Amino acid sequence: MAGQKRAENELRPVRFELDYILHPEGSVLISMGDTKVLCNATVEERLPRWLHRSSRRHGWVTAEYAMLPRSTHQRVDRETMRPKGRTQEITRLIGRSLRAAVDLGRLGERQIIVDCDVIQADGGTRTAAITGGYVALALAVKRLERKKRAKPGTLIRQVAAVSVGILNGKAYLDLDYQMDQNADVDFNVVMTESGQFVEAQGTAEGEPFSKGAFNAMMLLAEMGISELLAMQKAALDEAGYAIGSR
Amino acid sequence: MAGQKRAENELRPVRFELDYILHPEGSVLISMGDTKVLCNATVEERLPRWLHRSSRRHGWVTAEYAMLPRSTHQRVDRETMRPKGRTQEITRLIGRSLRAAVDLGRLGERQIIVDCDVIQADGGTRTAAITGGYVALALAVKRLERKKRAKPGTLIRQVAAVSVGILNGKAYLDLDYQMDQNADVDFNVVMTESGQFVEAQGTAEGEPFSKGAFNAMMLLAEMGISELLAMQKAALDEAGYAIGSR
Amino acid sequence: MAGQKRAENELRPVRFELDYILHPEGSVLISMGDTKVLCNATVEERLPRWLHRSSRRHGWVTAEYAMLPRSTHQRVDRETMRPKGRTQEITRLIGRSLRAAVDLGRLGERQIIVDCDVIQADGGTRTAAITGGYVALALAVKRLERKKRAKPGTLIRQVAAVSVGILNGKAYLDLDYQMDQNADVDFNVVMTESGQFVEAQGTAEGEPFSKGAFNAMMLLAEMGISELLAMQKAALDEAGYAIGSR
Amino acid sequence: MAGQKRAENELRPVRFELDYILHPEGSVLISMGDTKVLCNATVEERLPRWLHRSSRRHGWVTAEYAMLPRSTHQRVDRETMRPKGRTQEITRLIGRSLRAAVDLGRLGERQIIVDCDVIQADGGTRTAAITGGYVALALAVKRLERKKRAKPGTLIRQVAAVSVGILNGKAYLDLDYQMDQNADVDFNVVMTESGQFVEAQGTAEGEPFSKGAFNAMMLLAEMGISELLAMQKAALDEAGYAIGSR
Amino acid sequence: MAGQKRAENELRPVRFELDYILHPEGSVLISMGDTKVLCNATVEERLPRWLHRSSRRHGWVTAEYAMLPRSTHQRVDRETMRPKGRTQEITRLIGRSLRAAVDLGRLGERQIIVDCDVIQADGGTRTAAITGGYVALALAVKRLERKKRAKPGTLIRQVAAVSVGILNGKAYLDLDYQMDQNADVDFNVVMTESGQFVEAQGTAEGEPFSKGAFNAMMLLAEMGISELLAMQKAALDEAGYAIGSR
Amino acid sequence: MAGQKRAENELRPVRFELDYILHPEGSVLISMGDTKVLCNATVEERLPRWLHRSSRRHGWVTAEYAMLPRSTHQRVDRETMRPKGRTQEITRLIGRSLRAAVDLGRLGERQIIVDCDVIQADGGTRTAAITGGYVALALAVKRLERKKRAKPGTLIRQVAAVSVGILNGKAYLDLDYQMDQNADVDFNVVMTESGQFVEAQGTAEGEPFSKGAFNAMMLLAEMGISELLAMQKAALDEAGYAIGSR
Repeated sequence: MAGQKRAENELRPVRFELDYILHPEGSVLISMGDTKVLCNATVEERLPRWLHRSSRRHGWVTAEYAMLPRSTHQRVDRETMRPKGRTQEITRLIGRSLRAAVDLGRLGERQIIVDCDVIQADGGTRTAAITGGYVALALAVKRLERKKRAKPGTLIRQVAAVSVGILNGKAYLDLDYQMDQNADVDFNVVMTESGQFVEAQGTAEGEPFSKGAFNAMMLLAEMGISELLAMQKAALDEAGYAIGSR
Repeated sequence: MAGQKRAENELRPVRFELDYILHPEGSVLISMGDTKVLCNATVEERLPRWLHRSSRRHGWVTAEYAMLPRSTHQRVDRETMRPKGRTQEITRLIGRSLRAAVDLGRLGERQIIVDCDVIQADGGTRTAAITGGYVALALAVKRLERKKRAKPGTLIRQVAAVSVGILNGKAYLDLDYQMDQNADVDFNVVMTESGQFVEAQGTAEGEPFSKGAFNAMMLLAEMGISELLAMQKAALDEAGYAIGSR
Repeated sequence: MAGQKRAENELRPVRFELDYILHPEGSVLISMGDTKVLCNATVEERLPRWLHRSSRRHGWVTAEYAMLPRSTHQRVDRETMRPKGRTQEITRLIGRSLRAAVDLGRLGERQIIVDCDVIQADGGTRTAAITGGYVALALAVKRLERKKRAKPGTLIRQVAAVSVGILNGKAYLDLDYQMDQNADVDFNVVMTESGQFVEAQGTAEGEPFSKGAFNAMMLLAEMGISELLAMQKAALDEAGYAIGSR
Repeated sequence: MAGQKRAENELRPVRFELDYILHPEGSVLISMGDTKVLCNATVEERLPRWLHRSSRRHGWVTAEYAMLPRSTHQRVDRETMRPKGRTQEITRLIGRSLRAAVDLGRLGERQIIVDCDVIQADGGTRTAAITGGYVALALAVKRLERKKRAKPGTLIRQVAAVSVGILNGKAYLDLDYQMDQNADVDFNVVMTESGQFVEAQGTAEGEPFSKGAFNAMMLLAEMGISELLAMQKAALDEAGYAIGSR
Repeated sequence: MAGQKRAENELRPVRFELDYILHPEGSVLISMGDTKVLCNATVEERLPRWLHRSSRRHGWVTAEYAMLPRSTHQRVDRETMRPKGRTQEITRLIGRSLRAAVDLGRLGERQIIVDCDVIQADGGTRTAAITGGYVALALAVKRLERKKRAKPGTLIRQVAAVSVGILNGKAYLDLDYQMDQNADVDFNVVMTESGQFVEAQGTAEGEPFSKGAFNAMMLLAEMGISELLAMQKAALDEAGYAIGSR
Repeated sequence: MAGQKRAENELRPVRFELDYILHPEGSVLISMGDTKVLCNATVEERLPRWLHRSSRRHGWVTAEYAMLPRSTHQRVDRETMRPKGRTQEITRLIGRSLRAAVDLGRLGERQIIVDCDVIQADGGTRTAAITGGYVALALAVKRLERKKRAKPGTLIRQVAAVSVGILNGKAYLDLDYQMDQNADVDFNVVMTESGQFVEAQGTAEGEPFSKGAFNAMMLLAEMGISELLAMQKAALDEAGYAIGSR
């Protein structure tokens, strides 16, 4: 964990392992430094019940986030791990972010569930889940398109996310666990390939933060996310799935 | 609900009713237009268990948020209302925001719980809960200080919150329910009297939003929050509790 | 809380605030001394599932009772407040009592849910909920009748309730919290405007009670309830809703 | 089920089988007609946690009530049987009634739990549980007294219960299931051997009831309970445990 | 509990009381020494939901196992008794075993639920539940056959079970509670009247066991089960229900 | 999935990846064909509460088993995955089996929890969890011994497991998912390096099975387990941890 040796605007080493396991329609293991999240996209031909009752006739994308009990330094009880505040908040964030990538009307009346299971945690698990989850989702959608089950153009935007923060008065990109523990502010930013925001959530852990700090963090986030977007594209390209620039 | 007739940078009518009910150490009914939230601060002389085990010896501030079943247009099942994703996310946001107002070390080994119960909902309930909850918290802390149970200076910052959003391409302050339903972006901002951020959480409901939209919303939020901070101060002054400008 | 200064056959000051909040079909804040219960009647055009399966084709009236965490001297945990023995017993009592007021056949295939949320508690919350809940229910039913959605005569009986008890060997009407804590016997009585019983539930907290004590309490209850019935009628009259004497 | 052939003031055949199973400190199978309830009293040398925290230093008596899934005509799901409104209401009633039989100070710092499990149900299960539960409790207390673990005189009152009701305008004692289904009013009465009330709970199922009906039911209840008290005493006597008339 | 005086290959006294309670379609109280289990078979004319969705059109047999709180030496909390690991494991074992007795196709589209409630526990409750549950099930099925609601030959196999174990290096049949507590190995075996296995589950409590011990236990189990099968047959014969030897 | 091409007494390809993730005291990814289970051993310096209360002063070993939602062909709901019958039964089996490997007295007053998370499922997940879990446990214990925190000789036995079954009348070793679905009998066997049994659990899915089938399956299990024991030993040796033959 030589995180501190990175430059403040440098991402940790990033790696996407596509088709990591056999069964899912899209499976990606994303590593960002020592953080490893297994993202599995499942295509289900039935909609969630609440949507079924709605008159809108379109598809749905949702996500689930969980940690293996020993993904962390201290083991976390499975009992405690049951959907509580933090987990549900993250789950909702990932779901909203991934839905931004898809034209739900073109997807057709089906649901894609992206399970994000943290195998090893070292900070930034929720943003890694979004960045890796996008690739798993893209694999699943592209395969639906190839089988003519979804309309071409279902994938409308590329989405990636990163965390930024203020540590001892200085802005840093891509916080690992130790940096995150010591940060005064923690911001999670989700952006598209055209530089627009899907989500921006910042929290002062201790002292409130100024507009200047705010702007510095946003700049770092934009830089980091544009690198991640390029890496997602390269990984999908290599696997034979080109995602247009639209 | 004549919300649309307001100027885009105008708050709905705001009202604080202090000591609304008898038993709590601080009780405030805040109205923002038709949104009414009853905020009750309870001082408990024991810390939550998890803090008890910690070696840190300081106080704690937490919040709980709930809606009466018929606070909304459609009745919400109590069963359904049980702490789920949305409720817990809001509860955590209010708690973090109110903790920023207090020096937990000076508070002493006690806990203040601020219950925010929505009596009537018309948009912006979570930000109203923060703005009203601050006043209930301030009443409770000031009374502890007068009784010499907490050290002077326990209240370190004034905190208020407001929602802003983009509607048909234009930024609006203080969205009511109907505006919120139609907004493309929804931002909740929590700030202090010195113009610093405690929280900023924005979500694109449909299309992602640009940096320009982002900046426009932030400006409106700053304006609205500075008005709310002045009204909080006036309400506490009138009740005989001066909060310093520190 | 000058409860002790009342005569033993005197009610605390009673007040009905009709249409207290906006959304419900019937909304009443009842105050009995320092006890304040917000009673909101919701009309739902679908029946509860269990009734749906039944072959009987009629409407339904049900109630829910809850306390705000800080309605009491000591804050009550929301977790603890979840439907447990006491709450469910009260909920069932209120529901049965309010059903006696309505001809379920004439109501039509719809359900009225009366939510009784205790804003401030000082004894007698369950009987206040019945007395206030009747007024909320009557508002909702009368409005259904005016809109021709329910048949005229749906409201068949006026219902009110009061608590009585034995304190130091003497019978008292309308116990406040302090009296209730010290009472040897606690009786809750629900009656109609024709002097008939809907419910009568008495419990010896310590020593069993004699038939004489029983009769004394019943007399007080009858007196108190006839006053409450008159006040309900006056409040509804003033709001323009006459309830016949049938 | 020849219940209708009984006179209206006649109990169904009653039978107490003492020490029905091996392990409990007091075990009684009570039959009232086809209603069979197994009442087992357990002496535990530790108090419930909530009492432990109290400063009062005395014992406790509590009860639990449950039905075997197939004790009834239609099988009841175990899942559904989990403590819900009805079950908890009955559990609390039995507990309060049995506590009236014991001087908790003399009992010492221990708890007696009386489990009332309905083996076969044909109406009046809660009152049978009180009547049989008293005998199980008395066995357990008498044995504690003999072992000098509880002070003599711990058993201060004899307690029994019965249901009464109005059926086609006429008052009946000890309703079986079919009578109970058709009754207009259902009253459960708990009394002591000195003719005093511990509990009286009456509910109009349809039409409210008059004071005359009320008085008629009370008379029947007193008659029935005095018979049950005599049978309890005889059963305990026969087993060698005399309960004084005090 | 003179269990130790039995020969190592001797069963405890076994007794079947048929039609022990009124309502179930088949009701049997089985006693094996001091272990008493009430087995009640309920015929329901609807299938469990999961089977309903299946395309297979046949009946189903399932079981539920529970203990009365005071069936054991120490009272077991009802709260603790809620379906947890041990209970569910036993429930599944009994269900699988009893399904082996029935041709589900001939049973028709209905479900038989066999509730096994332990009234008194002294070891071997799960095997007694299978042995007694078979008799309750056979009663219910035979009665369906007589009413022409199930096809003849629905009952295809006779099933019984027993526990065996190693105690101080020696194999024993039908362990009571005290033997079970001291056993090194505990084996539950379920067999049919043709000497075939339905289930065999063995667990070393401390030291692993050898193949020799394994074989010795199997021999004892076969002997014990063939006695139990004969007693089941005799009990059913006596009640007028002959089960063929097929 | 070329499972059918294997000989009936041949294991699928087995692989142990030691120290698969960073944080656990022992971490092993076991693959048996397409079945992959991540086994992580955590050493906790506090005992489970129930053991704490006991007077016995020794350590504890326990296990938890879970599947990732998309480890299987069809995604399994997390909600549904919550500890239910099957999961708890497996969890208990793995825990008992791993405890047999350790001298709990020598382990000292600490607990080792072995989390077995199925990453990819293709039959035999519970036996793979035992076989892989043993290696993770051995790593954790050996490291405790090296740090002098556990006494030498804490690891007393090597334990491995395999499934066997009858398919079309023939016994097969190490069933994959498709074989398991079609098997008539399914046996899970856990053995030690000295050829003794820790567990043996067999279930007839349809027709009961004969003693001959039983013996054939046992032979295959012994053969398969002795291969697995050799592979465990080799993997630990290679990592520098020799486990004695004792």
